[in-house]
Amino acid sequence: MDIGTWMEQARRQVDQWIDQDLASMEVQPGSVEEAMQYSLTAGGKRLRPQLVLAAGEYVGIPWEPLRPVALAVEYVHTYSLIHDDLPAMDNDDFRRGRPTSHKMFGEAMAILAGDALLTEAFVKMAELSTTAFEAGAVLRATHCLAVAAGRQGLIRGQVRDLAAEHQEISVEALRDIHLKKTAALFEACVKMPALLVGRMGDADALGHFGQHFGLAFQMVDDILNVVGDPAVLGKATGTDAGLGKATYPRLVGLDQARVLVDEQSRLALAKLDQARLETLKGILTYAQRRSW
Amino acid sequence: MDIGTWMEQARRQVDQWIDQDLASMEVQPGSVEEAMQYSLTAGGKRLRPQLVLAAGEYVGIPWEPLRPVALAVEYVHTYSLIHDDLPAMDNDDFRRGRPTSHKMFGEAMAILAGDALLTEAFVKMAELSTTAFEAGAVLRATHCLAVAAGRQGLIRGQVRDLAAEHQEISVEALRDIHLKKTAALFEACVKMPALLVGRMGDADALGHFGQHFGLAFQMVDDILNVVGDPAVLGKATGTDAGLGKATYPRLVGLDQARVLVDEQSRLALAKLDQARLETLKGILTYAQRRSW
Repeated sequence: MDIGTWMEQARRQVDQWIDQDLASMEVQPGSVEEAMQYSLTAGGKRLRPQLVLAAGEYVGIPWEPLRPVALAVEYVHTYSLIHDDLPAMDNDDFRRGRPTSHKMFGEAMAILAGDALLTEAFVKMAELSTTAFEAGAVLRATHCLAVAAGRQGLIRGQVRDLAAEHQEISVEALRDIHLKKTAALFEACVKMPALLVGRMGDADALGHFGQHFGLAFQMVDDILNVVGDPAVLGKATGTDAGLGKATYPRLVGLDQARVLVDEQSRLALAKLDQARLETLKGILTYAQRRSW
Repeated sequence: MDIGTWMEQARRQVDQWIDQDLASMEVQPGSVEEAMQYSLTAGGKRLRPQLVLAAGEYVGIPWEPLRPVALAVEYVHTYSLIHDDLPAMDNDDFRRGRPTSHKMFGEAMAILAGDALLTEAFVKMAELSTTAFEAGAVLRATHCLAVAAGRQGLIRGQVRDLAAEHQEISVEALRDIHLKKTAALFEACVKMPALLVGRMGDADALGHFGQHFGLAFQMVDDILNVVGDPAVLGKATGTDAGLGKATYPRLVGLDQARVLVDEQSRLALAKLDQARLETLKGILTYAQRRSW
């Protein structure tokens, strides 16, 4: 199957799972679920759940048993966007062409919607089938997600990102921010399926993929913030420069940033088994070319 | 052992566990762990971990294997305080006699410290010993905590509490807010030990205790906000009235609120086994008498 078709099918499957989960919540006006729904149905690409499903294929798990993991990573991602957009953080008014959560529902509700999505991710992980997977393996996957989302992962990245605004930082410090802020969750996405079936060698190789995929992805994001078309991206460009954010284009220039994207993309595939990497490689190529 | 001595020993044990966990984080200045540490060592009574340990005694689990659960519930509680104190929520400048997290570290760091504590709670749950407990039972306890903390528990309570400010609401609506905002986490504290050892009948009876304990506790809190001594409480009183909060003293008067505390305290014990309830009853009596 061609990767575009695969990604479209995976995106539709994830959208359907999210719609079904929201339907089960019986969303009421004025409820936190309404704010969760607003951000969950804002036209996300579902890249993280797609990586869960692709890594699942790599280790031989069909899509359906991975549903809770796919939902959990999208919920963690969506929570992080809502909180990052808050006035006290990046203060973004628009995301994917629509008002951000706090512009729509107010700051209190946006904070709570993020909290609820983060918590719901762990509800989902604890609901993973213990007939499909060994319960101890589910705990290891849950631990992997919590560590990636927490103080040593996503949150540390955001803290350092905020601290680096209007500062001169080194390429090494920037790489560290990206490793935590962006790559940690991608790493968890592709490691968790391997952990669920106890394939520790695959978990290592997939984790390596996720890390370099994440670095490449963030570099592309930074490049798009300079050269992208706001109409296509659904968000303003030039915002990193406005906030004085440290980015690869600012530190090494646009051309060198593109060279680094290719380098990270090569590194991502280095440890994967050639016979099984087609879908993961396809998603990587898609992510790599967004900015070309 | 007299209940005061038991509670003091339990509090010291929990304080020691928290100190050890913070030491393992190697807290750096300017890190999110510094803000986590600030709120975790702000002189909390450790009532929720105490209830975990007391419920553990009720079902025959020693303290040590429950360490991750005791930490997890205190982390969830501390996260909820940090986020509730934010300017967009209750806008409190002081808690336990010290500046609140956002006054100390700024709003961005306070939001992130709350996020990190919530996430760390699930790191801890996933680290529960699968030699002491069956892995499937750990997943059921983790699910219990996530549901209690999430959109159907703590967060729904906070949403409805904020919506009820400056509104006339019924006693039934207020009870529903307290059930979610306060009682849900107490319920999880006492249910989890029973779930960990697969004693479902005890889980039901303990859940019933936790729910009514939580209602009694919140009523006492509301009463103290009217009649308490700010120096003893370590926080301002009269703040509920200032925010136009719905409370039992406002809806039914102080005397009737005290009658309701006693009623909830009786209900809390109704389903417990007489031979094993001493410690739980002692903690309940302590909570009930805080305002007398």
